[in-house]
Amino acid sequence: MSEFDLIQIIRQRIGHSRGDVVFGIGDDAALLEPPLGRQLAACTDTLVADVHFPHDATPEDIGWKSLAVNLSDLAAMGAQPAWVLLSLTLPEADERFVERFAEGFAELASKHEIALIGGDTTQGPLSVTVSAFGFVPQGQALLRSGARAGDAVFVTGTLGDAAAALSLLRGSGLGTRDSSNEQARSELLQRLHRPDPRIFSGRALRGIANACIDVSDGLLADLGHICWASNVGAEIEADSLPISQSLRQASAPELCRDFALSGGDDYELCFTVSEENAQRVAEAFSQLDCGVTRIGRIVAEPGVRVQDANGNVVEPPRRGWQHFAP
Amino acid sequence: MSEFDLIQIIRQRIGHSRGDVVFGIGDDAALLEPPLGRQLAACTDTLVADVHFPHDATPEDIGWKSLAVNLSDLAAMGAQPAWVLLSLTLPEADERFVERFAEGFAELASKHEIALIGGDTTQGPLSVTVSAFGFVPQGQALLRSGARAGDAVFVTGTLGDAAAALSLLRGSGLGTRDSSNEQARSELLQRLHRPDPRIFSGRALRGIANACIDVSDGLLADLGHICWASNVGAEIEADSLPISQSLRQASAPELCRDFALSGGDDYELCFTVSEENAQRVAEAFSQLDCGVTRIGRIVAEPGVRVQDANGNVVEPPRRGWQHFAP
Repeated sequence: MSEFDLIQIIRQRIGHSRGDVVFGIGDDAALLEPPLGRQLAACTDTLVADVHFPHDATPEDIGWKSLAVNLSDLAAMGAQPAWVLLSLTLPEADERFVERFAEGFAELASKHEIALIGGDTTQGPLSVTVSAFGFVPQGQALLRSGARAGDAVFVTGTLGDAAAALSLLRGSGLGTRDSSNEQARSELLQRLHRPDPRIFSGRALRGIANACIDVSDGLLADLGHICWASNVGAEIEADSLPISQSLRQASAPELCRDFALSGGDDYELCFTVSEENAQRVAEAFSQLDCGVTRIGRIVAEPGVRVQDANGNVVEPPRRGWQHFAP
Repeated sequence: MSEFDLIQIIRQRIGHSRGDVVFGIGDDAALLEPPLGRQLAACTDTLVADVHFPHDATPEDIGWKSLAVNLSDLAAMGAQPAWVLLSLTLPEADERFVERFAEGFAELASKHEIALIGGDTTQGPLSVTVSAFGFVPQGQALLRSGARAGDAVFVTGTLGDAAAALSLLRGSGLGTRDSSNEQARSELLQRLHRPDPRIFSGRALRGIANACIDVSDGLLADLGHICWASNVGAEIEADSLPISQSLRQASAPELCRDFALSGGDDYELCFTVSEENAQRVAEAFSQLDCGVTRIGRIVAEPGVRVQDANGNVVEPPRRGWQHFAP
C-alpha cells in the first residue's frame, strides 16, 4: 500500500461529481467554478483520536463524523454544502481502515451531493481534518451576531443525547438502573457517532432567523457565543429543553437537563427569531424531518441564564466543553 | 490559556484583510466572495511533527513551512493565492509556541496578501493542516496533463538543497569534508525550513507552459506525475540540473546529483513548454527574482530517464519520497 494506492481507494468510494468542479483530485490543486450570485461559506474542523472519538470507534463512524461536524458548521450559516477537502493522517497504510473510513464518509457526502475535491494522506497519529465549502445567496447567511433583545430562542431536534452516550462509553453511567436499556443505549450512541447535520433546517431558516449557531460545545456555551457576538443575553426555560425519549428512558431526570444544557456534540442548530417571525418557524419546519422547540428568549442583559418552571435558577455543573480546559 | 485565547493570538498576528472576505474568523464558517471570471484553486496539506519537520524545528519555521507547501501547490496551478484555513493541533496550550508559529505563518502570508479566513485549534499530537485557495483566470490553470512529446522541460531555482539539509540534520553528512562549511550549511537549512513558493513564477507561466507541478517529492517522482498524467515520458540531462553554490560547496558531486534528482521538499516548479514557446520562458523570468533552467525534454516513450553528457544512464539510489514506503 503506497500513499497513491490509499488515495485511489478514497477516490473510488467518494466519487460524487459536480458540474462546478472543473478538476478534482489528481493535480496540485482542485479547480472550481463557484456559482454566480452566491457567497462561498468555508470552514474546517479536525478530529483527533482519543480526543474527538474513542480509539475503538469504527472507521465508518469516524468517516461520517469527520464530515458531519463540518457540514454542521455550513448548516449553521444557512449554506448548501458542495465541496470538501480531506486530510487523513494514519499511523500505517491500513487498506481496510481507509476503505471503511471512506464508506462512512461517502454515505453522508452522497446524501448531500458533495464532491470530494482533494486532500492529503500522511503518516502520523490518527487524525482527520476536513474543510467544507458551501453556497449561500448573497446577504442571506445566518450569522451569530444578529440576535436582538426580544427574539425567541429555538433549537432543532433534541439535546444531550451525544453527551449521555459519551458518559456511557466512559462508564460514568446515567444515574439510573435503566441505563442498561439496550435500544435507548443504541440510539444515544448513534447520535454520538452519526450526527445528522441540520443542512435542510439551516437552509429553511434563511430570511427567518436573526442569528444561528450549531450546538457543538454545548447549548450554554454555544448560545453564549451568539449572545457575545450580538451583545445581548439569553434566558432559557429548563423545562422546555427538548429531550429525546431515549435519553429520558436511560437517564435520571436531573442528568437529562445537565446533558441538554452542557453536553457537546449534538450538532443541532440553536437560533433566534424575532417575535413576528416566530410563527414562521413552525411553517418552515413542517416540511422537514426534524423537530424544533422554543426554549427561551433573548434579553438585553449579557449572559445566559437558565430557570425552571418555579423561577429557580438552574446552574449545571459545567457550561460546556472546550480544548485545553484544565 | 483556553482555545479562544489561542485563537485570539493567531487572529492578532495573522491579520491581513481582503475585500473579498465578507466575514472571516469568528462565525461557524467564513463568508467569501470569489471574483467574477476566475476559477478557484483549492488544496490542502498536513505537516506532522517528526514526519514533515523535526520536533526541534522552530515554531516560526513550522508556521512558515505549513503555509509555504500549500502556496507551492497553488503556484504550480498558476494561481494567485488569496485565502487560507488553518487547523493547528497542539499537545498543550503553549502560548509562546502559538505566538511564534503565527509569526512565521504571518511573515509569508503578508508577502502574498493572504487572509486567514478560519480554522480550528485542537488538542493532540503536534500537526498542522492548511487549506489554501487562489484564483486563476478562466481556462488558464497549469495542469499536469498538458505535456506533449517534443516539449522542453524546465525547473525554477535550484534542486537538492532541502534534501541535503535533511541529510545534515540526520547526521548522514554530505560525503565531503566541506559539509562543515557554516555558510553553506546555513543556506541549505534555510531552503529546508523556509521554502519560497514560486507564486510569481507560476503566474508568469500562464499561457506559456503546457504542464506544471511543484517539486515536493523529488524531481523524478514529480516529473513522473506529469508524464503519467500526460501519457508521455521524459529524458533528463543530469549535467544540466541546477545545483546551488551552497550545495556544490558542501556536498560531494555525485551526491549533489542524487539530491537534485530524488530529494523532496525543494518546492521549485517543474514545467514543460512547447519548442516554439521555449524562448518566452527566459523573457518571462527576466522580471523575476528566480532562476530557470532547461533540463530535458518530453518524449513519447513512457517513463523518466536520466543520462549524463556521455550518454550513460544515471539511476539514483531512490526516485523520490512518499509516505508509507517500506
